[in-house]
Amino acid sequence: MKHKNLSVIGCALTIMTAVSPLWASSYNKEPIQPITPVKIVNLGMVELGKKLFFDPRLSKSGFISCNSCHNLSMGGTDNLKTSIGHNWNQGPISAPTVLNSSLSLAQFWDGRASDLKAQAGGPIANPGEMGFTHELAVGLLQTIPAYVAEYTLVFGTDKIDIDGVTEAIAEFEKTLVTPNSRFDQWLLGDENAINSTELAGYKLFKESGCVACHNGEAVGGATYQKMGVVKPYETSSTATGRAGVTGKDADRFKFKVPTLRNVELTYPYFHDGGAATLKEAVDIMGRLQLGKKFTDEEKTKIVAFLKTLTGDQPSFNLPILPPSSDKTPQPKPFS
Amino acid sequence: MKHKNLSVIGCALTIMTAVSPLWASSYNKEPIQPITPVKIVNLGMVELGKKLFFDPRLSKSGFISCNSCHNLSMGGTDNLKTSIGHNWNQGPISAPTVLNSSLSLAQFWDGRASDLKAQAGGPIANPGEMGFTHELAVGLLQTIPAYVAEYTLVFGTDKIDIDGVTEAIAEFEKTLVTPNSRFDQWLLGDENAINSTELAGYKLFKESGCVACHNGEAVGGATYQKMGVVKPYETSSTATGRAGVTGKDADRFKFKVPTLRNVELTYPYFHDGGAATLKEAVDIMGRLQLGKKFTDEEKTKIVAFLKTLTGDQPSFNLPILPPSSDKTPQPKPFS
Repeated sequence: MKHKNLSVIGCALTIMTAVSPLWASSYNKEPIQPITPVKIVNLGMVELGKKLFFDPRLSKSGFISCNSCHNLSMGGTDNLKTSIGHNWNQGPISAPTVLNSSLSLAQFWDGRASDLKAQAGGPIANPGEMGFTHELAVGLLQTIPAYVAEYTLVFGTDKIDIDGVTEAIAEFEKTLVTPNSRFDQWLLGDENAINSTELAGYKLFKESGCVACHNGEAVGGATYQKMGVVKPYETSSTATGRAGVTGKDADRFKFKVPTLRNVELTYPYFHDGGAATLKEAVDIMGRLQLGKKFTDEEKTKIVAFLKTLTGDQPSFNLPILPPSSDKTPQPKPFS
Repeated sequence: MKHKNLSVIGCALTIMTAVSPLWASSYNKEPIQPITPVKIVNLGMVELGKKLFFDPRLSKSGFISCNSCHNLSMGGTDNLKTSIGHNWNQGPISAPTVLNSSLSLAQFWDGRASDLKAQAGGPIANPGEMGFTHELAVGLLQTIPAYVAEYTLVFGTDKIDIDGVTEAIAEFEKTLVTPNSRFDQWLLGDENAINSTELAGYKLFKESGCVACHNGEAVGGATYQKMGVVKPYETSSTATGRAGVTGKDADRFKFKVPTLRNVELTYPYFHDGGAATLKEAVDIMGRLQLGKKFTDEEKTKIVAFLKTLTGDQPSFNLPILPPSSDKTPQPKPFS
């Protein structure tokens, strides 16, 4: 039996190589890899996490949900220079996209959360974001019968805790990958998926050194790099980046390299939202990171390439949230 | 041919009567009618309107969309006493649900907009809500190529105007009816759709006089009534209701009777959000509008009935919004 199975597998591999010869050859030699669409996820947990992601009752005001700043209708971000938090607080940094965030080495611009679960708890308890506490959020959810029932099904206990809440949100976020971009189709062997300008832009992107940081499945997200290598970056933002986590002066202005997946949708760019357009972002990156002044034509080509990185956006029914009960504390937006 | 067709129709009517004898008889004699699920709508316009309904770029901040206060995950409202607007402004009134709003005689609590289209333009230009202007909103949409293309398909012109924008939003809102509640199933002849407590609650609701105002397809929404008929309603809200529209002193504190469809989801209640729970709302309505002090048991029964009015919530994919272009003005949340 064992031999028979091995033989079947061997046969399948042979067929795959035979049918799509470009499949293996084309992207293995490229610095960017296609996004793997399938993830092993706990679907029950995903559904619970999806509701929690959209639920503004996780905020003090009852008005701000994860989706407020990581809007899945808008590339998983809010398209603002800096986000709006509780009491219209102006956030210190531009909200990174939640799309493909599972592919990053860590979460937040400074990588202070090691994974999606650790990240999810941050904004809930941040006074300038959702302005709540973990205790109040969990206590509130505990008063909503349908949440308790769903939580019990997923976690085997009716005692909701922040660990389960953030784990469920993270599990939902794992599903937010965006496969099937035109660039991935090209990587997978469809030569007509991108046009000659876009291909020329990709060649420029590689030859100019952009791929040194923007590579892999997420086209970024794998390293921390200093913003302003060749010349300093001028900004009014007070964010110091990775130094705030490590305490090392050498890490000042080092930020996690953002993913370029769906970058067409995730304007404005950089940690301070300082670049309004892709062309401006490419220009600044060239000058400050690579010491290279791209011509207008070169920028146009690179931007054309970058727009081929827009993948299939998450597709699901708008979640319907379970109603509060008579015991649920009322939100306090104005106190 | 004509005779043949008529004969087929006659036959079909006979069959319907024969198969469900309760269908016609049961609800025709009730003061509440089931929601008609099918509406004649322009589907292309609905899809455009759905995107606009979810698009925060119709606000000055780029943060507030129609869905912010009429959240379709939460019964078409924000579940706040009073809504949060631009710059965290505290609104003067509780956001009414957008669900089944097409069934109301007019829009807003004071009926100042004659229809959904007239309503849709209000919040966009209200400094305390979305804080924008019609001119800026339309000008912004005009810079988004995918919106211009979709608008052209729907309206036959590439010149976007506020008339088309609000017409599309209204067309989407027409689809937000919630048929198939358990109470409607009961009205349509399924005697097991509601239990004996719920039925007793409905009988009390009828006998006590609630149906004088809460009747018809929307279980409300058809008349303006004074809040505080038998006794004055105590509130810190400064809203004067219908008088603000008519200028007549007799219309002070007259508000549009809210729909009770999905009332389980649309807490808190009344124009000022003054009642946190359904039980409290029933108690206040009884005392102030009917001069009737319901016992705890009676309130429990009426609330049980009211919860049978929750219908099928709108079900659709979260819309993906077209990205801004390099010409799109950036939002101004903090200026």
